[in-house]
Amino acid sequence: MSELFTVIPPGQAFATLAHGCSQVERTEIVPLAEALGRVNAADIFAAETLPAFARSTMDGYAVRSADTHGASEQSPAYLELTGDVPTGIVPTVTVVPRTAGRIHTGAMLPQGADAVVMVEDTNQHPSTGSGQVEIEVLAAAAHGENVLTIGEDVARGALAIPAGRRLRPADLGGLAALGITAVEVRARPRIAILSTGDEVVPAGAAPGPAQVRDVNATTVGATVERAGGIAVHCGIAPDEENALLEAARAGLKGADALVLSAGSSVSVRDLTGRIVEALGRPGVLAHGIAIKPGKPTVIALCDGKPVVGLPGNPASALVVAWRIVRPLVRLLGGEAVDDDALGDGRELDALLDLSVPSRPGREDYVPCTLERDAGGALHATPVFGASNLIFTLVRADALIAVPLDRSGLAAGERVRVIVQ
Amino acid sequence: MSELFTVIPPGQAFATLAHGCSQVERTEIVPLAEALGRVNAADIFAAETLPAFARSTMDGYAVRSADTHGASEQSPAYLELTGDVPTGIVPTVTVVPRTAGRIHTGAMLPQGADAVVMVEDTNQHPSTGSGQVEIEVLAAAAHGENVLTIGEDVARGALAIPAGRRLRPADLGGLAALGITAVEVRARPRIAILSTGDEVVPAGAAPGPAQVRDVNATTVGATVERAGGIAVHCGIAPDEENALLEAARAGLKGADALVLSAGSSVSVRDLTGRIVEALGRPGVLAHGIAIKPGKPTVIALCDGKPVVGLPGNPASALVVAWRIVRPLVRLLGGEAVDDDALGDGRELDALLDLSVPSRPGREDYVPCTLERDAGGALHATPVFGASNLIFTLVRADALIAVPLDRSGLAAGERVRVIVQ
Repeated sequence: MSELFTVIPPGQAFATLAHGCSQVERTEIVPLAEALGRVNAADIFAAETLPAFARSTMDGYAVRSADTHGASEQSPAYLELTGDVPTGIVPTVTVVPRTAGRIHTGAMLPQGADAVVMVEDTNQHPSTGSGQVEIEVLAAAAHGENVLTIGEDVARGALAIPAGRRLRPADLGGLAALGITAVEVRARPRIAILSTGDEVVPAGAAPGPAQVRDVNATTVGATVERAGGIAVHCGIAPDEENALLEAARAGLKGADALVLSAGSSVSVRDLTGRIVEALGRPGVLAHGIAIKPGKPTVIALCDGKPVVGLPGNPASALVVAWRIVRPLVRLLGGEAVDDDALGDGRELDALLDLSVPSRPGREDYVPCTLERDAGGALHATPVFGASNLIFTLVRADALIAVPLDRSGLAAGERVRVIVQ
Repeated sequence: MSELFTVIPPGQAFATLAHGCSQVERTEIVPLAEALGRVNAADIFAAETLPAFARSTMDGYAVRSADTHGASEQSPAYLELTGDVPTGIVPTVTVVPRTAGRIHTGAMLPQGADAVVMVEDTNQHPSTGSGQVEIEVLAAAAHGENVLTIGEDVARGALAIPAGRRLRPADLGGLAALGITAVEVRARPRIAILSTGDEVVPAGAAPGPAQVRDVNATTVGATVERAGGIAVHCGIAPDEENALLEAARAGLKGADALVLSAGSSVSVRDLTGRIVEALGRPGVLAHGIAIKPGKPTVIALCDGKPVVGLPGNPASALVVAWRIVRPLVRLLGGEAVDDDALGDGRELDALLDLSVPSRPGREDYVPCTLERDAGGALHATPVFGASNLIFTLVRADALIAVPLDRSGLAAGERVRVIVQ
């Protein structure tokens, strides 16, 4: 184990882990109804062209556009109604010159027609005697007007859904449109979560005097699940080297990464470092990250698997879980995640109501409440006080992110906040 | 059925539905590991005080602060080491005047001590002869310094987690800290989803000529699930009044709300209106909403249950599902959702790269791509073209929201976008 107490910026810590590990290769096939939020495993190309036929986008009359040329309220065009175009079946009518077919939204354009005149731009006149019905067209329709043409949505052979996309409702809709009802997705990365500490008991146990309940297994597990991973709970190990190593090794064996939540005391950190060194090569990459709260975080790679040793303090552990573990899970799960990524739609910009002090060279995360003013602008109000308490986070809406290079944020600034 | 074709703003449509329906009263008890994203059913009060004992937040020495008064590098205080304070058990040492106990982060403060001096602010000197060890204290510690006091996190009887909160990782951590391992949550609202249209076939079927696959069941179902609801799929009904009414009635019977996705043609809209009128009182509240795309949306309340008739067009249906169905599901599910709410962390502010035309009196939703520039600012670039196609949404990152009262948005403006 390196004797140097190396502290690196959080972005660098994540990038180093990202560089040294591989995405989960396992895939599984799930029905569309279970694919929301899963990561598409392979590029999906359209096997057919959509729409497969020209369709009307309006209620009105299918016409030959040339027949409506120059038509206006002052000088209407008159067409003979040639029949109805029902929805869902191939039209039997053909639109020959100076005729029109009555058509509904979504129906196939009949042969001969190349445009649709909206019903609002027409009058219908019962004919006198002949049994024919006359359509008065009050506006010209250009070629293709109010018509969805073949292939306008997606062309056969085109990339429909790229690999690595976390599937959204619209993506699932695109697959349904193409008749794809099951999709190959990446397996969810398995993240082993091991709590340590002689003073820590399970959340369901009654702590003795001087003991506390395990909070981190729950918060880290929820963060992993939200990022698309599977939390594999490995219980609580004592601060004893052999027992801890055995538990860590067993946890990492069946998982793609290991998150330890250990104490922050120097002796416990040393213990964590020794354990991690024994788990695989190259071992510990950093003995701390430049973040507050959360500095005493161990960053390691053990035989290609990321290992993150979180501080034992619940608030610190959760902040580092957000900053490092969350993008790591997304990356392992097959998404393209850049070095400094928090960009999964949980970041907002807000106007800062009170100044926040910080120190350059360190990312700070300050709990805040969020509120929209009457004009719709979002305001962030820092919650000062003991930021290392879990209920400080429970009472907060978000965390204000103070960038590495800033010595603080001024009231009135537009700042980035991370919604919990 | 009202003969008037009433078009109301989307916010008013949602508010009217919200006013006329009730939240789901059913609850269920789930373990913490399954409670992420569920809505807490009842106020939860702390049954105990946390921390339950004063704890050290640092590695160092537990002292009586008075003994360190005035201590500095130039004028250290000297204390006799009285013993170790192990973590996780009640300390056996007592700190009497002019003594100090060695303590680790998280350990219980021993009797007599009221502060902790960080190890960095001390030197330890082996004594000569007596077997005693002397601690040199280089900085004064104030009363309570580096100590987490009893009740600093949460006090017994305090509101720990309010009813109506969608549970986040930190909330689950707070519950774990209190020893609460299962939580009563609102049942997920059940939303019946019924597609209609003679031209519509299931996504898994091969469409005949002039037929299309059902996209809306998938996209609306995914939107409902993401908002915390259960999508109850009721299949596809033909455009025939009796069959449609029967399917709608059966769907609504076992559900808390019904979402119909119907065609947008006038005759189909009339049919939808008649069906909805027959489902319960007061029936149709609006025959359209001032939104683009999505205007031909039917808003109704049938015997206390919301019914939304979406346009058949997939993109329109999805936009209205975002704007109306999503907050409705959250509201039914027990969250406090305000009239005009999109505020579930999927809204971002971005700088608009190109001007977007609109019309006052209508909310417009324009597909866009999102990109961060080198300085970290988020830019939205509108994707123009056929916005009523599902693959236009597949290719987009978000939708730019043009407010009701605006005649367009100018390039360079800060705008609100809704991440898909």
